[in-house]
Amino acid sequence: MTEGKLRIAILGGAGEIGRNMMVLEYEENIIIIDAGIMFPENYMLGIDVVIPDLSYVVERKDRVRAIIVTHGHLDHIGALPYLLEEVKAPLYATPLTRGLIEVKLREHGIRDAEIHTIGPQDVLSFNPFRIEFFRVSHSIPDCVGLAISTPVGMIVHSGDFKFDHSPVDGVRTDFAKLAELGGRGVLLLMSDSTNAETPGYTVSESAIQENFDRVFANAEGRVIVATFASNISRVQQISETALRYGRHVAVVGRSMVNNVKMAQELGYLNVPDGGLIPINEAANLPHRKVALICTGSQGEPTSALVRMSRDEFRSVRIVPGDTVIVSATPIPGNEEMINRTLDNLFRLGANVHYDELLKVHVSGHAGQEEQKLMISLIKPEFFVPIHGEYRHLILHAQLAQQVGIPEDNTIIMESGDVLEIDDDFARIVDRVSRDYVFVDGRGVGDVGEVVLEDRRLLAENGFLVASVTLDRISGKIVAGPEIISRGFVYVRESEELLERARQAVVRVVERGGDRVLLGKRIKDTLTRFAYEEIGRRPVILPVVLEV
Amino acid sequence: MTEGKLRIAILGGAGEIGRNMMVLEYEENIIIIDAGIMFPENYMLGIDVVIPDLSYVVERKDRVRAIIVTHGHLDHIGALPYLLEEVKAPLYATPLTRGLIEVKLREHGIRDAEIHTIGPQDVLSFNPFRIEFFRVSHSIPDCVGLAISTPVGMIVHSGDFKFDHSPVDGVRTDFAKLAELGGRGVLLLMSDSTNAETPGYTVSESAIQENFDRVFANAEGRVIVATFASNISRVQQISETALRYGRHVAVVGRSMVNNVKMAQELGYLNVPDGGLIPINEAANLPHRKVALICTGSQGEPTSALVRMSRDEFRSVRIVPGDTVIVSATPIPGNEEMINRTLDNLFRLGANVHYDELLKVHVSGHAGQEEQKLMISLIKPEFFVPIHGEYRHLILHAQLAQQVGIPEDNTIIMESGDVLEIDDDFARIVDRVSRDYVFVDGRGVGDVGEVVLEDRRLLAENGFLVASVTLDRISGKIVAGPEIISRGFVYVRESEELLERARQAVVRVVERGGDRVLLGKRIKDTLTRFAYEEIGRRPVILPVVLEV
Repeated sequence: MTEGKLRIAILGGAGEIGRNMMVLEYEENIIIIDAGIMFPENYMLGIDVVIPDLSYVVERKDRVRAIIVTHGHLDHIGALPYLLEEVKAPLYATPLTRGLIEVKLREHGIRDAEIHTIGPQDVLSFNPFRIEFFRVSHSIPDCVGLAISTPVGMIVHSGDFKFDHSPVDGVRTDFAKLAELGGRGVLLLMSDSTNAETPGYTVSESAIQENFDRVFANAEGRVIVATFASNISRVQQISETALRYGRHVAVVGRSMVNNVKMAQELGYLNVPDGGLIPINEAANLPHRKVALICTGSQGEPTSALVRMSRDEFRSVRIVPGDTVIVSATPIPGNEEMINRTLDNLFRLGANVHYDELLKVHVSGHAGQEEQKLMISLIKPEFFVPIHGEYRHLILHAQLAQQVGIPEDNTIIMESGDVLEIDDDFARIVDRVSRDYVFVDGRGVGDVGEVVLEDRRLLAENGFLVASVTLDRISGKIVAGPEIISRGFVYVRESEELLERARQAVVRVVERGGDRVLLGKRIKDTLTRFAYEEIGRRPVILPVVLEV
Repeated sequence: MTEGKLRIAILGGAGEIGRNMMVLEYEENIIIIDAGIMFPENYMLGIDVVIPDLSYVVERKDRVRAIIVTHGHLDHIGALPYLLEEVKAPLYATPLTRGLIEVKLREHGIRDAEIHTIGPQDVLSFNPFRIEFFRVSHSIPDCVGLAISTPVGMIVHSGDFKFDHSPVDGVRTDFAKLAELGGRGVLLLMSDSTNAETPGYTVSESAIQENFDRVFANAEGRVIVATFASNISRVQQISETALRYGRHVAVVGRSMVNNVKMAQELGYLNVPDGGLIPINEAANLPHRKVALICTGSQGEPTSALVRMSRDEFRSVRIVPGDTVIVSATPIPGNEEMINRTLDNLFRLGANVHYDELLKVHVSGHAGQEEQKLMISLIKPEFFVPIHGEYRHLILHAQLAQQVGIPEDNTIIMESGDVLEIDDDFARIVDRVSRDYVFVDGRGVGDVGEVVLEDRRLLAENGFLVASVTLDRISGKIVAGPEIISRGFVYVRESEELLERARQAVVRVVERGGDRVLLGKRIKDTLTRFAYEEIGRRPVILPVVLEV
């Protein structure tokens, strides 16, 4: 059985946070694990989301036997619509994950996907792969990790996980199964590195309950809790707390409303009848009878909490006495927007609780000791840290070495790397595309570094267009030049400056010379003009027409 | 003495971090305290720095008796060049602060400023103000707070401070003086709120020494420490540690080199002869004999550390075995750039130590218990928290209430607010401009919200310009239309799309109609075209010329 080799291509999620996607390939058979999006960093101007480069699987689409999804977060399911447009293969997911996938596919108008519901006891066979599942706890219910038997040995994929002994939904990471897998012998563990910087254990979700209790016990007005729309466990926890303190709960924010509805229908959210009420009913209750759960924990400009903080949310106007809990950690890059939101809430007189002041959020990812525990239970021969920025991968690999994995057997893969592995040897043999594929509006992949660089230049100093029409024969100006500009100077107060720019263009044209190079001469003149006048470097574009 | 009223206008630094500036005004006499810049937030596209609106003092410039500077950080001195261009008044500062101011003024070509050196024992009189100083410890040497006797009572301004009992430079916040001021009776305390979210005490600078020792003891290659260019105490600490472990120290990065040179000349940095060496000498020593101190702790794109992390810094190429210490906390908004830098350093094989993993930095600002101690020592009648975002001010005011200041006597001022105070009453009586004044290139204040909004739109989706020349009489097209675009689509791969946009413009023109509205019709057509074709909303500008 060891003659063949297994190839594992990581297409996203290694050396970066998000767009998780992986391909396992043995001879003519491929299975795909997850296909997620990454949220754009601040420098990716105008980009909606980032997905992996799918060309590796598109080129091999006839070999794809299955797409297995570990859980329903967008960084694991968000790229499925793009994948399914190119690759027709059956999807396998737990019920809640399936529900979230279906919502996503509907948004993209995809109605013909073949989706199968799986439970943690199921075993799937796609020759030569045999896939078992194990429960993991995370920050959304119904997560699984994967144990994949292959001709070269067993591959374990942790999924996103932590070892919470008292999670809100009562579903724990399945120690027994992990130990049993470890006993059977595991060739390779690929494990979640997100919190490799965090010492110790991630605090249990139950541990923040006493802080919620304290806040609810002392709140006089409404209690408004912002968290991730996907954090169904937190919604469960807040709802239970609210009901215990005699409050009804209304959910605010489109994505939150949709997720809560679906989680209720599928039985993943259990609130007694009458506990959850529509927001317009909540508006008629005394404030001390109301709790709201809403989106906006990352300071997203159009979210419910941000609109409330700006007093622009019609159905909920924050007043002194209201209490706001922001139950989330900032995703790097969002700090400024979150801080602005917190400040605005304080300005409206709310009592605001957030991570900096009170522990009202716990991570969904394993801390260092849990990462070590996973490795110790699985006892793999090889270890590949996944799901993390580069430093997380290195730190996670160092942890693995601390618990006995030889340094040579811990392999750092980045997105695009292809590992070849047999029963006693593993190495990176290939690098396929790790390019960011940018989604902007309905364009997928058409915006690249050139367009982004132009956006950066435009963002920095705006642009100047000089449009002029010449007589084809004489080269004399017959119309224009007209100077138009945005983002460079305040046009209304800079008429004199722009008029001088116009005259500079006139002088360049009148000076004559090679007509082919006139555009370049106009550009050079205006570039110099802008810098000398005001020290800025706008994008400059000449338009020379002839009649 | 109580017939007159004192007016205190905060022009910057209240409800925001940075651009600290304050005006004290009694009858025809004004003193100014500090004039700093704020670094732009990410959404302030293309802006270099932000300064306070100076018009309040410019309008009253003949009354300005003195400008007092508490310490040499840019958020306290960076706006002085702009202020001095408008207001000719003498400056007062301690020696190191003066040195840093002079560097700044030289950069702006200001050579005629009247600057006086003061020491903490000095007393200045500008009728009716009498100003005493007290030493405070912070993250740069030579900081002072102010005790200002006025006809209505004493005003104490803390400056930026913490109570470090074992600072690197040995200079502690002057408890005795603070207690003595408290004993004399203080009308109003204005105190640094930066760390109002941080419980307890800020750890002493000496406490991180053992971590530096551990890192230096174990380092095999070079040790490279990035910190703020102004953090002279940290430079002192690192230099001493390096020498103890048999390493020479080279300083890298223009601003770091300048500051170190000046601090040495003024006696604020004491390194034995031969301890500090030029970078080119360091290049010839074995790696285990070298320590480097450099800029780049905030991930600034052109800084030494960032260039090293990209392997673009010629004189220092990071190799496995090198150790990097990032001795700073991320300023909100810089996290992405810092994380990218850390990842790149890990990629080059460096051992990287940063705040997340090892305590190698302490804040320069007082934690909650220190803030309370300041209030308890000064025992003011009124309390105004300064230097902080809005939530910090609120939290600081709550601390003041905990130590006995009546709620009515804690006053939240934001930048632009004017306080009127006499010996038993204080209230906000006026609001002057709190506008951000943006510096962009050589333009000061000409870029406002309109230009920024244009830059935001351009950053999001770029622009399309349609330029067409018509026959004035017939309205027929005689040249063009030409479509030019940047940041919208990748022009080289979108010729067909842009050609269809061109044809859409031709059709609009040929359809005829009111010539005055033709521009608007072209704009509407292209807006619809861009959205329907690709789901984007570029800035669209029509240019219609006539011949």
